[in-house]
Amino acid sequence: MADFSQTRSLFKIPDGVIYLDGNSLGALPLAVPARVNSMIEAEWGQELIRGWNSAGWMVQPRRVGDRIARLIGAAPGTVVMGDTLSIKVYQALAAALSLNPGRRVILSDSGNFPSDLYMAQGLVRTLGDRATLKVVEPEAVEAAIDDSVAVLMLTEVDYRTGRMHDMKALTKKAHDAGALAVWDLAHSAGAVPVDLAGADADFAVGCTYKYLNGGPGAPAFIYVAPRHADVAPPALSGWMGHEAPFAFDLDYRPGGGIERMRIGTPPIIALAALDAALDAWDGVSMQEVRKASIALSELFIAEVEKRCPSLTLASPRDASRRGSQVSFRHPDGYAIMRALIARGVIGDFRAPDALRFGFTPLYIGEAEVRGAVDILEEVLAKKLWDKPEYRQKELVT
Amino acid sequence: MADFSQTRSLFKIPDGVIYLDGNSLGALPLAVPARVNSMIEAEWGQELIRGWNSAGWMVQPRRVGDRIARLIGAAPGTVVMGDTLSIKVYQALAAALSLNPGRRVILSDSGNFPSDLYMAQGLVRTLGDRATLKVVEPEAVEAAIDDSVAVLMLTEVDYRTGRMHDMKALTKKAHDAGALAVWDLAHSAGAVPVDLAGADADFAVGCTYKYLNGGPGAPAFIYVAPRHADVAPPALSGWMGHEAPFAFDLDYRPGGGIERMRIGTPPIIALAALDAALDAWDGVSMQEVRKASIALSELFIAEVEKRCPSLTLASPRDASRRGSQVSFRHPDGYAIMRALIARGVIGDFRAPDALRFGFTPLYIGEAEVRGAVDILEEVLAKKLWDKPEYRQKELVT
Repeated sequence: MADFSQTRSLFKIPDGVIYLDGNSLGALPLAVPARVNSMIEAEWGQELIRGWNSAGWMVQPRRVGDRIARLIGAAPGTVVMGDTLSIKVYQALAAALSLNPGRRVILSDSGNFPSDLYMAQGLVRTLGDRATLKVVEPEAVEAAIDDSVAVLMLTEVDYRTGRMHDMKALTKKAHDAGALAVWDLAHSAGAVPVDLAGADADFAVGCTYKYLNGGPGAPAFIYVAPRHADVAPPALSGWMGHEAPFAFDLDYRPGGGIERMRIGTPPIIALAALDAALDAWDGVSMQEVRKASIALSELFIAEVEKRCPSLTLASPRDASRRGSQVSFRHPDGYAIMRALIARGVIGDFRAPDALRFGFTPLYIGEAEVRGAVDILEEVLAKKLWDKPEYRQKELVT
Repeated sequence: MADFSQTRSLFKIPDGVIYLDGNSLGALPLAVPARVNSMIEAEWGQELIRGWNSAGWMVQPRRVGDRIARLIGAAPGTVVMGDTLSIKVYQALAAALSLNPGRRVILSDSGNFPSDLYMAQGLVRTLGDRATLKVVEPEAVEAAIDDSVAVLMLTEVDYRTGRMHDMKALTKKAHDAGALAVWDLAHSAGAVPVDLAGADADFAVGCTYKYLNGGPGAPAFIYVAPRHADVAPPALSGWMGHEAPFAFDLDYRPGGGIERMRIGTPPIIALAALDAALDAWDGVSMQEVRKASIALSELFIAEVEKRCPSLTLASPRDASRRGSQVSFRHPDGYAIMRALIARGVIGDFRAPDALRFGFTPLYIGEAEVRGAVDILEEVLAKKLWDKPEYRQKELVT
């Protein structure tokens, strides 16, 4: 296993906490506070409006996009930052549908993150009878790809179980059937090696607050394959995607390439945080991360199955079919997770019954995994979770 | 005139700078750096994922929205933060069109900010033959409101000249004709008194990086009139607007009231900056701001017209028809603005020939106005702008 002790020193992990929820919100990279402060004080405070040029704010969405491109197998100039993942889903889906005008069906699965499905439903309502959304079970996706499908829209790694789709095979199947493929990399970017170019994906989108550690609500990204970048029509045609934003024309003319996927004024403070967070990835190979992630996940599964028999594995047992998280089911999963969190082991819960644990080799190692199982075993063996305060639902579960 | 010396002490203005561009990017409120740092270190760093509950992140878009509501004549619970202004325009416009299904015409004007028109064009393309955009001159808007109009979409204060529409009269005219009214308050919020409830506006949107000083790319806001809030269908139907986001249903069900206008995961770092910036407005009345703004603008116009005869006023002379900015035209406006900026007087330029100066009484007073005119007079009298380096275009003009 690669030695991640150096990257671990780049993160703040609070005392007494074993953090296994980096798949939901990444830990704080120590470089972030100073970088954000400098952006605020030296750039905004001192440069004021001039910062758009002098501090490079205007090109930041593309510059940061290039840093992420390296982690997802995309060429420089094919990724741009902005908005939220939901907005990026809408953009990618609308553009993909436009590029396949003879067809109406968006094919997705029930393992997709709900917001992706919701955004598709909103787009379908807006498009009227020109589109329809078909949702099948994850296992039925491959068989459902036929020549009625305009766009295959999937999240590569299932947020509930970590089950991973075969991006390359499904994209090929989609292309062979005359469909385009849109991939959501929310649980992939920084978690597993992604090869967008090699898989020949048409569009990809993702968030940066999970494995990329950009902070709560950090900006999303969108990838457009070079063959589509100059022809994909933007449905969300904001001024920053205009060919000449500062000409203030009354008519929209899309900018060249990935630039047209920009919409409004970019979130510069949030981009500064993300940019600093990405420093932790310098010199890190996704292959090494994957190797470490599998070792941690395998250890976790083996220990839990040995010591916590009341839990049932919900994730694929085959590591090659699993992202960088492991889920176990238990009817009282919610209360168990609350009891774990109260003892410093932070994972999360996904309805109806999944305890979810994320493995982020940049700052989590074997000692944390063993420590987490120790506490999990005790919580279950002594039924420490069986208290009213652990059953009480919080706003965010 | 009210005494704004106290609010002025809340802002950082760099030495040697006279900042008359707060209408484009507000100055840095001194409370921002510490608040953002605390959000990052104590909330994200220490609370990690728990911050969504323990630090109130999940309710922040609405809590900050309520602070802005006070400044725009909106009731608590009618404004929510998120995304960019362009996205909020799309949301408001799509919802308004849905509420007026028998009609197709979106009426706007050529004084609207181009991104609003671009987003409308994108929506029209997506809607197909169910909508069309009609753009008239600002002076022709009133006469163009007829019973074909579904939605009147206007920016209250013209970004080029500061010319102000009569929100109340035009909204009434729209309603009398059976149309809905969507108002963009980008150059109104924090600049002029706005009374959304009194004007009976249907929807309003705005950005917070201008007069509200939230920082570059700060989150936008949307207002929905209470009568529409539970029935307006969200076109951008993201999970945060779902009735129960953490139920992870496969089907979208809009949340109650303004909550349904949320889309993706909220930008918590940026919201912390904005929240801190809004402290400067505590106890400040928009009527006092307006009084001071008019005094500063009137002084500026009088001094410029007396001392800089080569400039032509582009803004309405009647202060009651003008927002909190003043524009003057000159064929060499671009080079003149560059020469001014080089001398510390920061305004901006809007093609083809407008020099634009914003007045932000929270941190700009009479001394700055007089000082700016001194330098402007010298730049013009000595033709100091007539240099190649001032003609060279920058990325952001």
